Amino acid sequence: MSFASDSVGIVTPQKYSFEQPLQLECGRVLPRFELMVETYGELNETKSNAILICHALSGHHHAAGYHHEDDKKPGWWDACIGPNKAIDTNKFFVVAVNNIGGCHGSTGPTSPNPENDNLPYGPDFPLVTVRDWVNTHILLSDRLEIEKWYAIVGGSLGGMQALQWSIDYPDRLERCAIIASAPKLSAQNIAFNEVARQSILSDPDFHQGYYLSKDSYPRRGLILARMVGHITYLSEEAMKQKFGRDLKSGKFMYGFDVEFQVESYLRYQGERFSRNFDANTYLIMTKALDYFDPSREYESSLTKALANTKCRFLVISFTTDWRFSPQRSEEIVNALITNHKPVSYLDIDAEQGHDSFLFPIPLYVNTLRAFLGGEAHLRSASTFQEPK
Amino acid sequence: MSFASDSVGIVTPQKYSFEQPLQLECGRVLPRFELMVETYGELNETKSNAILICHALSGHHHAAGYHHEDDKKPGWWDACIGPNKAIDTNKFFVVAVNNIGGCHGSTGPTSPNPENDNLPYGPDFPLVTVRDWVNTHILLSDRLEIEKWYAIVGGSLGGMQALQWSIDYPDRLERCAIIASAPKLSAQNIAFNEVARQSILSDPDFHQGYYLSKDSYPRRGLILARMVGHITYLSEEAMKQKFGRDLKSGKFMYGFDVEFQVESYLRYQGERFSRNFDANTYLIMTKALDYFDPSREYESSLTKALANTKCRFLVISFTTDWRFSPQRSEEIVNALITNHKPVSYLDIDAEQGHDSFLFPIPLYVNTLRAFLGGEAHLRSASTFQEPK
Repeated sequence: MSFASDSVGIVTPQKYSFEQPLQLECGRVLPRFELMVETYGELNETKSNAILICHALSGHHHAAGYHHEDDKKPGWWDACIGPNKAIDTNKFFVVAVNNIGGCHGSTGPTSPNPENDNLPYGPDFPLVTVRDWVNTHILLSDRLEIEKWYAIVGGSLGGMQALQWSIDYPDRLERCAIIASAPKLSAQNIAFNEVARQSILSDPDFHQGYYLSKDSYPRRGLILARMVGHITYLSEEAMKQKFGRDLKSGKFMYGFDVEFQVESYLRYQGERFSRNFDANTYLIMTKALDYFDPSREYESSLTKALANTKCRFLVISFTTDWRFSPQRSEEIVNALITNHKPVSYLDIDAEQGHDSFLFPIPLYVNTLRAFLGGEAHLRSASTFQEPK
Repeated sequence: MSFASDSVGIVTPQKYSFEQPLQLECGRVLPRFELMVETYGELNETKSNAILICHALSGHHHAAGYHHEDDKKPGWWDACIGPNKAIDTNKFFVVAVNNIGGCHGSTGPTSPNPENDNLPYGPDFPLVTVRDWVNTHILLSDRLEIEKWYAIVGGSLGGMQALQWSIDYPDRLERCAIIASAPKLSAQNIAFNEVARQSILSDPDFHQGYYLSKDSYPRRGLILARMVGHITYLSEEAMKQKFGRDLKSGKFMYGFDVEFQVESYLRYQGERFSRNFDANTYLIMTKALDYFDPSREYESSLTKALANTKCRFLVISFTTDWRFSPQRSEEIVNALITNHKPVSYLDIDAEQGHDSFLFPIPLYVNTLRAFLGGEAHLRSASTFQEPK
């Protein structure tokens, strides 16, 4: 099998071990940790062409390409990463990392706990925050000898990491792309996360998080959590166009098997997800979302939080995204403008709701490409306006 | 204890038994059934001042007043029903009914099944539809000797019953008030219902619906179902104003106990509901919502469905209602206007989202009052415009 010419082709994840203790925001310390990483493209001599990709709730380090010849699905952001794609691997050295707390190889709840006979951490894995992740990214940057990232890019929860980067380490990135994100969760956002968490926590197979040692798994809870999540990822309009009120068998069955196509879709998505994701990780990721609020230690002022940033910003939202609506992106943009920071903002007309950030929508992809510049080291395209 | 002068005071529910078989839309037949009913005010001699109140998903026949002196909470629509209130019991004879399939006294899953040794129906209770309910209302109307209702009024799922009434029995109502409702559910509406149902169905304590005979109860499932429901009842803005990102203990606890106030609220609502509602009824009510689509047998044309209606309509929506948005009400209004039917429509500026229909918002209450007329038998107020 051969891959498309704009694919990065076969990729091999690498694991980086960090043997020093990591102080976490919650007060606890991870004695050591590992990060799963994929890279695409080549780091140039001056190490000035590196782009860090931060993942969203259910994402990971496998952002582009294939793991083997027969791999049916490429990485989660293959639409944007590859030779001549928006994030052009002919020009850039792209680094995608799986965050700690995850379940795809980086240290998380399914990893051995050195403080407990190397049994899986399970629910004893600490709750981590966006800031904790950024701190692990810094250690990774040092290991890769990347003093300053050409850009840090992320969608949704990934955008929050990019935003936190710009605040905590202003000298270590030139560009920051925050896509389909928000400066902090709303009460409604938290409410949806809480339903997802309670679905898992109340599943009798959860066993207070020690399901692995009980040879059990809170499958039902994870299915419900993902179903409710999926509703918030799609726009009402996308659901209408995709499913409408279409019936699976063409008529009402007056029972609790699937009747409407949208039910079939949700159950399928829930089932599939529940087979490939760790429940404790799901809890950790939703809590990281809830906790995120960089304005918190700046007198609840996002403007103050962003006052010392030094990078150029691109903020992108999608018209039908109701999980993190365009208004939420505008909060970031307005705080940057108030600070006279260079920011480009585009609200992209798209039907796919929050999920839009994963689709190769031309204006979106081209905006990202332009922001990252035709050539590495060039300032971003002149089509972008800077506020006065 | 004395009640406010605009309260109907102490009320006593009555049970009406119907011993004839009831053919249901699903094809099954109920051999007999009972309806729990409350009435407020007096039926006049000509039986021309009767108003029927249809309830929503978790509602029932107890719409106004108190059941005993020490009752802490009045009926669910006490804000609108009483002496000199919008639905003025000094002028009108108000009838509030609990629908079959419910769990508040009318025949439903917790009722004895005469075809099974009078054991509770449980999951053997048939799935009923809005049309089935309207057919039971007709039998109730005949029993009460009410040939023509002065008005039929309902919010949310209750509005759907009022709409179905106007289509199926055009000669038997003069006015129809459809509040915070929709002509059919969207894919997103169905998706939320499906999450609620799966929460219950997948709870191990559900026992395929036979939880009563197992001395069990799917409490966790019902809590989750109600939590997800509650998110859709409140507007994002109402949640923001009510809870924002307020923390219960003032700081992050880094655990899974309640951290944000909104979590506390949702858990409380879920818990409370789970103690007072039957899980099989919840399933039946959500399915009735999903099935509702009066256009279905009119070539999917709501305009055709409404062509033979004869009553005056009042349609009310609320600006922040995202469960059944103003656009959904406009679908009804537009179909009526196309038919040159008399309709008044008001989109009320309110912050409480879908729940707004339960609040005594002045413009809303006054609109309802004006529509129902200062005096029984008067045509509704001249401030209402009729389409040409």
